[in-house]
Amino acid sequence: MNVAERKVEAAGPAPQNQTFDNIVTYDRDPSSYRHWSMDIDGDVATLTLKVDEDGGLRPGYKLKLNSYDLGVDMELHDAVQRIRFEHPQVKVVVLTSGLDRMFCAGANIYMLGTSSHGWKVNFCKFTNETRNGLEDSSKGEGLKFLAACNGVTAGGGYEVALACDEILLIDDRSSAVSLPEVPLLGVLPGTGGLTRITDKRKVRRDLADVFCTSEEGVRGKKAQDWGLVDHIATSRNWDEKVAERVAALRAQSDRSEAAQGIALPPVAREMDDKGYHYPHVDVEIDNDRRVATITVKAPDGEIASTPEAIQAEGAAWYPLAMARELDDAILMLRTNNEEIGVWLLKTSGEAANVLAMDAVLAENEGYWLVKETIAMLRRTLSRLDVSSRSMFAIIDEGSCFAGTFMEFALAADRSYMLDLPDDPDAAPSTTLSSMNFGAYYTIVGNSRLSGRFYDDEKAVEDLKTIVGEELTAPDAEERGLVTFIPDDIDWEDEIRIAVEERSSLSPDALTGMEANLRFGGQETMLTRIFGRLSAWQNWIFIRPNAVGDKGALKLFGTGTKADFDRRRV
Amino acid sequence: MNVAERKVEAAGPAPQNQTFDNIVTYDRDPSSYRHWSMDIDGDVATLTLKVDEDGGLRPGYKLKLNSYDLGVDMELHDAVQRIRFEHPQVKVVVLTSGLDRMFCAGANIYMLGTSSHGWKVNFCKFTNETRNGLEDSSKGEGLKFLAACNGVTAGGGYEVALACDEILLIDDRSSAVSLPEVPLLGVLPGTGGLTRITDKRKVRRDLADVFCTSEEGVRGKKAQDWGLVDHIATSRNWDEKVAERVAALRAQSDRSEAAQGIALPPVAREMDDKGYHYPHVDVEIDNDRRVATITVKAPDGEIASTPEAIQAEGAAWYPLAMARELDDAILMLRTNNEEIGVWLLKTSGEAANVLAMDAVLAENEGYWLVKETIAMLRRTLSRLDVSSRSMFAIIDEGSCFAGTFMEFALAADRSYMLDLPDDPDAAPSTTLSSMNFGAYYTIVGNSRLSGRFYDDEKAVEDLKTIVGEELTAPDAEERGLVTFIPDDIDWEDEIRIAVEERSSLSPDALTGMEANLRFGGQETMLTRIFGRLSAWQNWIFIRPNAVGDKGALKLFGTGTKADFDRRRV
Repeated sequence: MNVAERKVEAAGPAPQNQTFDNIVTYDRDPSSYRHWSMDIDGDVATLTLKVDEDGGLRPGYKLKLNSYDLGVDMELHDAVQRIRFEHPQVKVVVLTSGLDRMFCAGANIYMLGTSSHGWKVNFCKFTNETRNGLEDSSKGEGLKFLAACNGVTAGGGYEVALACDEILLIDDRSSAVSLPEVPLLGVLPGTGGLTRITDKRKVRRDLADVFCTSEEGVRGKKAQDWGLVDHIATSRNWDEKVAERVAALRAQSDRSEAAQGIALPPVAREMDDKGYHYPHVDVEIDNDRRVATITVKAPDGEIASTPEAIQAEGAAWYPLAMARELDDAILMLRTNNEEIGVWLLKTSGEAANVLAMDAVLAENEGYWLVKETIAMLRRTLSRLDVSSRSMFAIIDEGSCFAGTFMEFALAADRSYMLDLPDDPDAAPSTTLSSMNFGAYYTIVGNSRLSGRFYDDEKAVEDLKTIVGEELTAPDAEERGLVTFIPDDIDWEDEIRIAVEERSSLSPDALTGMEANLRFGGQETMLTRIFGRLSAWQNWIFIRPNAVGDKGALKLFGTGTKADFDRRRV
Repeated sequence: MNVAERKVEAAGPAPQNQTFDNIVTYDRDPSSYRHWSMDIDGDVATLTLKVDEDGGLRPGYKLKLNSYDLGVDMELHDAVQRIRFEHPQVKVVVLTSGLDRMFCAGANIYMLGTSSHGWKVNFCKFTNETRNGLEDSSKGEGLKFLAACNGVTAGGGYEVALACDEILLIDDRSSAVSLPEVPLLGVLPGTGGLTRITDKRKVRRDLADVFCTSEEGVRGKKAQDWGLVDHIATSRNWDEKVAERVAALRAQSDRSEAAQGIALPPVAREMDDKGYHYPHVDVEIDNDRRVATITVKAPDGEIASTPEAIQAEGAAWYPLAMARELDDAILMLRTNNEEIGVWLLKTSGEAANVLAMDAVLAENEGYWLVKETIAMLRRTLSRLDVSSRSMFAIIDEGSCFAGTFMEFALAADRSYMLDLPDDPDAAPSTTLSSMNFGAYYTIVGNSRLSGRFYDDEKAVEDLKTIVGEELTAPDAEERGLVTFIPDDIDWEDEIRIAVEERSSLSPDALTGMEANLRFGGQETMLTRIFGRLSAWQNWIFIRPNAVGDKGALKLFGTGTKADFDRRRV
């Protein structure tokens, strides 16, 4: 029994039912993969894609030519998660294909053609996050990825290769890399393709223009010359070249040979009419008000604090367990609850326990499992940032927005903190910890605190001086850490009205607005106006919610109220 | 007769007809403004907005409450242009309103509601460019702008104020600044609003969230505290405060009191079935192939080269005349020729004359009129960059892609250069000049050359060593300055096929692709994926060209070819 098999066993059986009243879950397990296989050989993991044509997540399309749908990508995401935690000795991951002369044909077009707008966008978001996750683990934790493209590498197939550290393409006179979306489908290479060939690979933009308007793509030496791939190799030299590139990537990795993996059992999720329930995270869904309340519970007491004890607890160790549950909750809500447009972010429990957890994380940040756990928290918080839902943090009695938990308030679009000047014992407080200053860097590359103050170094330094201090509502408002501090007379009404107002607005306009406001500072203003902002605007301008017969723009001034499609995309 | 009146007279009468077979032109003249008035008092220009309700550019809506349409913005653009050239002694421009308690209500909603998608997008693009132009002139040429908001400042009204150097708001208990687009219309504050409140004004993002979802906006002290405006003043103190802020802005301006303005006569445009024709620029439109050929002609000989001679020629001075003609041609094509998706950029004449022109520009860059002319060229080239049309530079026999004219090739999505190895005398060449290294900085903030090589300083330094050298097609290809170098056997076919292929693709997909590829480097990759790229993708995903009954995605694999709506937006 090899390491992979042992771990799979330890992780328990795969869930029997992956749907619950048509609910889509992200539960996957190597023992039941239909599309990928994972082979671990010492410090190298090989993920081989051989898509089961009849294994589509939904009916109505066949996954030919190693094309993929959301289900295929869920397995990739799961495999990488397991390599992170179950196989910490792995330094290099090789992505390759089990088909002849076909690496991957990209996202399945029939699936896209038959999917709703919302499904497509959610699918793209998750695949983007999975691809970003490869780069995130490479940069942060030294896990290196080699795309060993042993056949045609098209569209999304090339996009996943672009997310790897290196691309090796077989030079066999037929295998090309290509982004044929524009000429073939009239859509964009939208899961990073256009961006990575410029920003990451720095392909000259006129060559990129030619490449992206070509159905057949570019192969061999030319692909290498244009910067589309890093290396090429003939079939005869293939294994040798793969070994060479693996060796080169291994040398860049600082993952530890000595580390022992931990098993990742299925996330303990219970579902009922009220929502999704986990040991440390609870999601209560109010379909009438289109609001979900996500409550993260603090550790009950002190968490295991030595490498040995942490290792012994494994996936049950609180920070990792909580991160996995929250991550799952976000994915569940995004996929299955499109009409739930407002997420209220709450916390409950003892702030002291959260701060003690932060101290353990900070002290042990060099230990592989703690490092991977912090990375998991980082990626989970990043999922919040890009979720097209309005998020309000609710800092009420019994809450514990401290340290890591303060990130929920900083990720929210706004926050409400209860001010109880006459009852200091019951009044909630907020507290910063060292974990708020960079551990959970966002996709902009800075901390949420730094982003909040537009990278004003002095403001950030000032906040470092109050690490560990309990801030009352007026303190937190004064420091710019919370938005509103109603007292107990206004509290309920103010939040109720804010939620009702938010729920009444156009989901499309909110999505566009939030996408613009959440990331500031590190682009140039004008490119954002013409690129990001105009893009969202154009999109909204042709959405029925704006210009349809029942759209807000169309109906303005007629006395008739707009009737919105409530699904968020 | 005051200065403004004198200049108006010098500029000649306004064009009698502003339309030609329903063609929209951008010709405006202060003597026929319907919405703005311009008063020059020493070094201060006051632009007062008092919109003629019945003066809409198109029928069907009334421009109430100082709301605007494209025609109102054309006048603003014209006024600022005249201040740049006709009134060089002006240091501060005050934008204010001639209505009581109403500065500007923003873009007219009925106009938006009744406009096509394409018209809205083109309208927003021009208003964006006009607003960016205020900042461009402030940063580059020291012309400072004060938004003196003497009443309600809503939506696009606030967006124009945001583009000024300072915002002064009247504190009268009723006048608020607001961006009510999201709550009121289900669209975004899309002409810079969302971006400028974050990137420029650094309004904390939770406060921005509250502000942008509020119909009523924020007024008085709170607007100042949140960073939404710079100063407030009561009615009683208004004039005094305006004078104070004008004085402060005057002190930041380095425009010259001694400069004498030149008159801007109407651009000499002739229109016929073949296209738009100007003395130095020609636009030939092929409606069947959906292609426009834009040819810029080099100066006939040496241009006036001393401040005195340049001043004497005024608007007839070649670089300024050419810039104004090209600018007009771009606007004409964008507004009146939506279906013309490919622009071929050509040049004709003597490269030596272009290089001599560049030498004059470089030597006299400190002289006010030359400085303003370079700025006009810079803004005109920036219009190319953001035009949603595919641009191919055609470097053929008789062309002169040298120095400033090389910018056309660098702005293009790709370039074709004729290689005539056996006929060096007839073979076209390309030449760089010092003007290619920063004078025409793009909206990313760098030169097109620098952007082309992803700000690789060494690559740029290497190119500086070949300034003035005539590069053959192989030289230019080797240097990475052109895309393809067909010889005369392949030349015609290759370009014909490339143009036909381009014209056959989805206009929406091309717009999205080009918007992504044209600006690389200075954003973070991930924010571009989630922001810009996903935005365009989402938009395209719901466009009929992709998912309509005749869309490419929908029809893929059916054997039926997609039938595109050819209008570019």
